Amino acid sequence: MSISAVARAADLSVSTVSRYLRGELRVNPDTEARILGAMEHTGFESPRLGLRRLALIVPELANPYFSQLAQAIANATASRGLGLQVLVSNGLASRETALMAECAASPEVDGVMLVSMTGRASPLRSLPGDFPVVILDERIHDESSRPFVGVDNFGGAYQATSYLLSRGHTSIVHAAGPSTLDSARDRLEGYRTALRDRGIEADPNLIIEGPYAEAFGESVLTRLLRLDDAPTAVFCGSDIVAIGMIAAAPMYGVSIPRDLSLVGFDGIPQGEWVTPRLTTVTQPIEALARRVLETIESGPTSGQAAEVRLPMQIRVAGSVAPPPTR
Amino acid sequence: MSISAVARAADLSVSTVSRYLRGELRVNPDTEARILGAMEHTGFESPRLGLRRLALIVPELANPYFSQLAQAIANATASRGLGLQVLVSNGLASRETALMAECAASPEVDGVMLVSMTGRASPLRSLPGDFPVVILDERIHDESSRPFVGVDNFGGAYQATSYLLSRGHTSIVHAAGPSTLDSARDRLEGYRTALRDRGIEADPNLIIEGPYAEAFGESVLTRLLRLDDAPTAVFCGSDIVAIGMIAAAPMYGVSIPRDLSLVGFDGIPQGEWVTPRLTTVTQPIEALARRVLETIESGPTSGQAAEVRLPMQIRVAGSVAPPPTR
Repeated sequence: MSISAVARAADLSVSTVSRYLRGELRVNPDTEARILGAMEHTGFESPRLGLRRLALIVPELANPYFSQLAQAIANATASRGLGLQVLVSNGLASRETALMAECAASPEVDGVMLVSMTGRASPLRSLPGDFPVVILDERIHDESSRPFVGVDNFGGAYQATSYLLSRGHTSIVHAAGPSTLDSARDRLEGYRTALRDRGIEADPNLIIEGPYAEAFGESVLTRLLRLDDAPTAVFCGSDIVAIGMIAAAPMYGVSIPRDLSLVGFDGIPQGEWVTPRLTTVTQPIEALARRVLETIESGPTSGQAAEVRLPMQIRVAGSVAPPPTR
Repeated sequence: MSISAVARAADLSVSTVSRYLRGELRVNPDTEARILGAMEHTGFESPRLGLRRLALIVPELANPYFSQLAQAIANATASRGLGLQVLVSNGLASRETALMAECAASPEVDGVMLVSMTGRASPLRSLPGDFPVVILDERIHDESSRPFVGVDNFGGAYQATSYLLSRGHTSIVHAAGPSTLDSARDRLEGYRTALRDRGIEADPNLIIEGPYAEAFGESVLTRLLRLDDAPTAVFCGSDIVAIGMIAAAPMYGVSIPRDLSLVGFDGIPQGEWVTPRLTTVTQPIEALARRVLETIESGPTSGQAAEVRLPMQIRVAGSVAPPPTR
């Protein structure tokens, strides 16, 4: 079956279908459904180099960031005619190791994309060196030089903090992720560097570490209300933490952004459902999904492992105002 | 390996671990992680009848309801020592059919839980009759009498509508799901019956049909603002539609609940992140996950297929007020 048969069945141009299949064209959901339907109907599969069925290991699906990422990868694999199974590790290194070993031993899995939240290299240790693996989103430091695809966490944090500084804030809390994670350390460093570039040394009392979880947002809020000199803004290392703060704020009599400005990190759609809408730096989820597939398809690299870092972009909404006058 | 070894490794009582494994005890995430870690550590697996690896087919992961359901099933399978792969159909009947056929042919899948959004029986037609399948959440009408596990959509909708009536509303819009879906038809019927039980005939102009999607919420809002006699309340057939209305309301100068009261359906956590918090009827997600596993483990039924309908429960929050006085 040829691309032109798919294009005819979908009532679209060959160029549209082929650009979509190469991941170069973003189409609306209706058009995508027509192309996927036409591919099924005609039995068309994109020609690939032996990679037909992939597995994606994620820590959890309850966190919207991971479920959005999984959906984007499901779309990208479907558009290339690849199979995908999503496996949930519940954030346990022991489970990641077991899942990786099962995938490597399975005749039904030709490659794995691993999103780890443990930062531990143990899942990779016992794998055959030629089994296709790409580390996605959260860096793992291992000796086996596996390729990595993720975002520029440092740059995103630098942008978020700089935006708050540009609006007049100087006392800025960072609700940081777990320091065991590379992403959290890079975001903290971006925050520190943006402050330093304006001549401000980061105050250790204003750096609060916790999990990427909604409940952490409320605990940050209660902690900063207890500070003598109330800070005027918070840069959250994850949208879900910022959303937790927005949800809790009314209970503590805090008005966002009048009393406290907030910037998140990730760009999950849920940030647009809250009031005020969350100003955040957004991850290019579709581009991440395409790049991780291109990377796994390009096969093992010799020598230095490929590291792809995609840029983040600030999205200004309603959660930032100038600092309150006292 | 015994349960007592797992309990020792987890530093918990044997009773806690065994009640958790039977799905009778809900524990906090830390405790769950300790039990799962101890199971991995000790190599313990719950004894099961030949079902070791299951697949879950869902329409999408971007909708929080499906990602919450997938996470609950991932937890329930992990706690029973079963493997789980999550497969995404993108809501296409052709893809559901292809995925079902692959699962049935795979030596690595012992049973399938299918959440369909097509309402079409075609995915089941070509399957061997003894291949374990449970239909979950959305009923499929087929001749092969597969067991079904879902919620009492009629009862949930009846409760939601009755609650609005009890607060004094009589002009109530129903933002209904696609009428091709059993769930949507049952919810519509629950709405109609609750009205009728108060002597009110449902007004066809107040029933607006659309997809279970956030964007539909905004379109419902714009449509009801154009009605001559503005309704005072909306029962949404899905939380994500209600959340779309809450997010859009400020742009149209509508204050919820002062101008318009809202009740959702599902009970996704995102309903607690918006302002006002969403009053809704909640699905018992953990119980659904347990029941679907029990059903698939109990094997094929003879004669009439088992149908489990779990009750829904109203959760009162901030999105309902008495109707405005005119």
